[in-house]
Amino acid sequence: MIPAKAYAAFDATSPLAPHTLERREVGEFDVQIEILFCGVCHSDLHQARNEWGGSMYPLVPGHEIVGRVSKVGTKVSKFKEGDFAGIGCFVDSCRECHSCKEGLEQYCEVHNVGTYNSYELDNKTITYGGYSSQIVVDEKYTLKVSENMDLSRVAPLLCAGITTYSPIMQWNIEAGHRVGIVGLGGLGHMAVKIAASKGADVTVLSTSPSKKQDALDLGAHNFAVTKDPEELNKLRNSFDFIIDTVSAPHDYNLYLSMLRRDGTMILLGAPPEPSTVAGFSLIARRKRLVGSMIGGIAETQEMLDYCAAHNILSDVEVIPIQEINTAYERMLKSDVKYRFVIDMASLKE
Amino acid sequence: MIPAKAYAAFDATSPLAPHTLERREVGEFDVQIEILFCGVCHSDLHQARNEWGGSMYPLVPGHEIVGRVSKVGTKVSKFKEGDFAGIGCFVDSCRECHSCKEGLEQYCEVHNVGTYNSYELDNKTITYGGYSSQIVVDEKYTLKVSENMDLSRVAPLLCAGITTYSPIMQWNIEAGHRVGIVGLGGLGHMAVKIAASKGADVTVLSTSPSKKQDALDLGAHNFAVTKDPEELNKLRNSFDFIIDTVSAPHDYNLYLSMLRRDGTMILLGAPPEPSTVAGFSLIARRKRLVGSMIGGIAETQEMLDYCAAHNILSDVEVIPIQEINTAYERMLKSDVKYRFVIDMASLKE
Repeated sequence: MIPAKAYAAFDATSPLAPHTLERREVGEFDVQIEILFCGVCHSDLHQARNEWGGSMYPLVPGHEIVGRVSKVGTKVSKFKEGDFAGIGCFVDSCRECHSCKEGLEQYCEVHNVGTYNSYELDNKTITYGGYSSQIVVDEKYTLKVSENMDLSRVAPLLCAGITTYSPIMQWNIEAGHRVGIVGLGGLGHMAVKIAASKGADVTVLSTSPSKKQDALDLGAHNFAVTKDPEELNKLRNSFDFIIDTVSAPHDYNLYLSMLRRDGTMILLGAPPEPSTVAGFSLIARRKRLVGSMIGGIAETQEMLDYCAAHNILSDVEVIPIQEINTAYERMLKSDVKYRFVIDMASLKE
Repeated sequence: MIPAKAYAAFDATSPLAPHTLERREVGEFDVQIEILFCGVCHSDLHQARNEWGGSMYPLVPGHEIVGRVSKVGTKVSKFKEGDFAGIGCFVDSCRECHSCKEGLEQYCEVHNVGTYNSYELDNKTITYGGYSSQIVVDEKYTLKVSENMDLSRVAPLLCAGITTYSPIMQWNIEAGHRVGIVGLGGLGHMAVKIAASKGADVTVLSTSPSKKQDALDLGAHNFAVTKDPEELNKLRNSFDFIIDTVSAPHDYNLYLSMLRRDGTMILLGAPPEPSTVAGFSLIARRKRLVGSMIGGIAETQEMLDYCAAHNILSDVEVIPIQEINTAYERMLKSDVKYRFVIDMASLKE
């Protein structure tokens, strides 16, 4: 076994603390990755604190992983030692269901193996995430990362990037479309960048006027305060798409009213409580409320290559692992622009 | 002006009663129709009783109208005296907005003129519906009806038929698709017939086991009781489409759980109160919740021609106009298979 240093949650209420774990030996198709950076996703906090239930402790979060390949299995063809590599939200899947065969492993109908707090396909071995020094993953579930990018800013692409890229591609969002983005956090700021890069006319919809300059700096073309009745009235029936990244409970009908006929509202955040939808909000102009969840391996690679080609990177605040508990508290207050990323070199200290 | 006999609601609480009204003189592009049959839609009752607000009395309901052309304007080209003709849910629209130009007059962005309880484009003249002996409508908003059909059974196609046909066409529902139908009333029974005629595998989803034989008789291939946990479990992730015709408040999440990945739930009924939707119900398998409302004139004609070619007719209970108030009470108890249709000859009595 391969020893790895890590930070773990040991129960739902204590701060994360140092931990050691063992990674499996490098199998024929495996790559061993020395983790350089790991993004901090809100779902890390949810699971560390058992807010979704079912957390298995010790729990090592982290699914926005970028690192350097330190060893490859005998049958690995995609990677060689020294390459940069990425791991996203899952590290395996059944490989045989319709979804897996279509390259939509995130929707695997049998067993999608989460990068942490999940069981491997053997239904016994628990997975541990990227808040650690090493990880060993099958090359099929490992992404190639361009060496010319700022790797700390690449890490959040593995979750926040693909979560926004996938629906933008699925729905062919492009020049000529008016797109509203709800929520300007980790997901929202990537949605602005990617939608703008596709040529869409992007409006950030926010309850807080203070975010205007940030929104424009990120590449949005417009900004609207959704508490102002006059602005709201101007936005009625105006968007082709609304990308909703908010995971706190909120009223979908307000945003649905801003869609034009045949417009589509895409949900990426999952509020813990159900929201309300008036049937008439969808019926009156034949609107659509749809969901989307991360992306498959092939599409994640496509996204990384697209971002490299278009110089799209996450805006991050790099922290040492020792500050992770403070970072969680700040994340709860949305006090981050726009993603914390752990510099894993700090784990050696 | 042209005098017409009718039945009207005179306020929100009194029974409908005899009335006389005047139709406009036949203009250059108008057709005058002697009404033979008029279907009874639940929205007639809603509006007669001012349940949606804004009812204008005396109110003459009825928007599932079939009759015989008795006079045509000098510039009418589609109809001649003696032809059979139909009128659906609207009798005019702005004709100039994007929706009108695309043949989606039901979504007119300026002014869709409802067949009753609405203002004509002059914003002054109130429209009166099909519970009457005569109607005068521009030929553009008048449908051609095949003379070989049972006209009493054609009438409900003008609302219930097109409301179900339009989304079945928009979403290309066809052979190879598994389709669930929620609600077996006026809309639901047409959804079963039309979806089955397209070759889809149709399952009626009902809370009441007593509807099984009726569902199969209408052409459904399967029937499932949605109160039985075992049956529900079998239905999880199984449908490509669910057509929801229920207009009482209900939990959308139950039906969303029955959709497979990328499946679509189509709302046709608009409950008066909002329903709840858990974001995760849509996100986890990239599902869609969408709306649809009646259809445009061209598509309504296409639907009538399709139904004539495939011998699709509504199942109806024909009543004299004098029984309309009893019919309303029975409709409230879903005591009708599946649509009341008024034989307008009774108005002469």
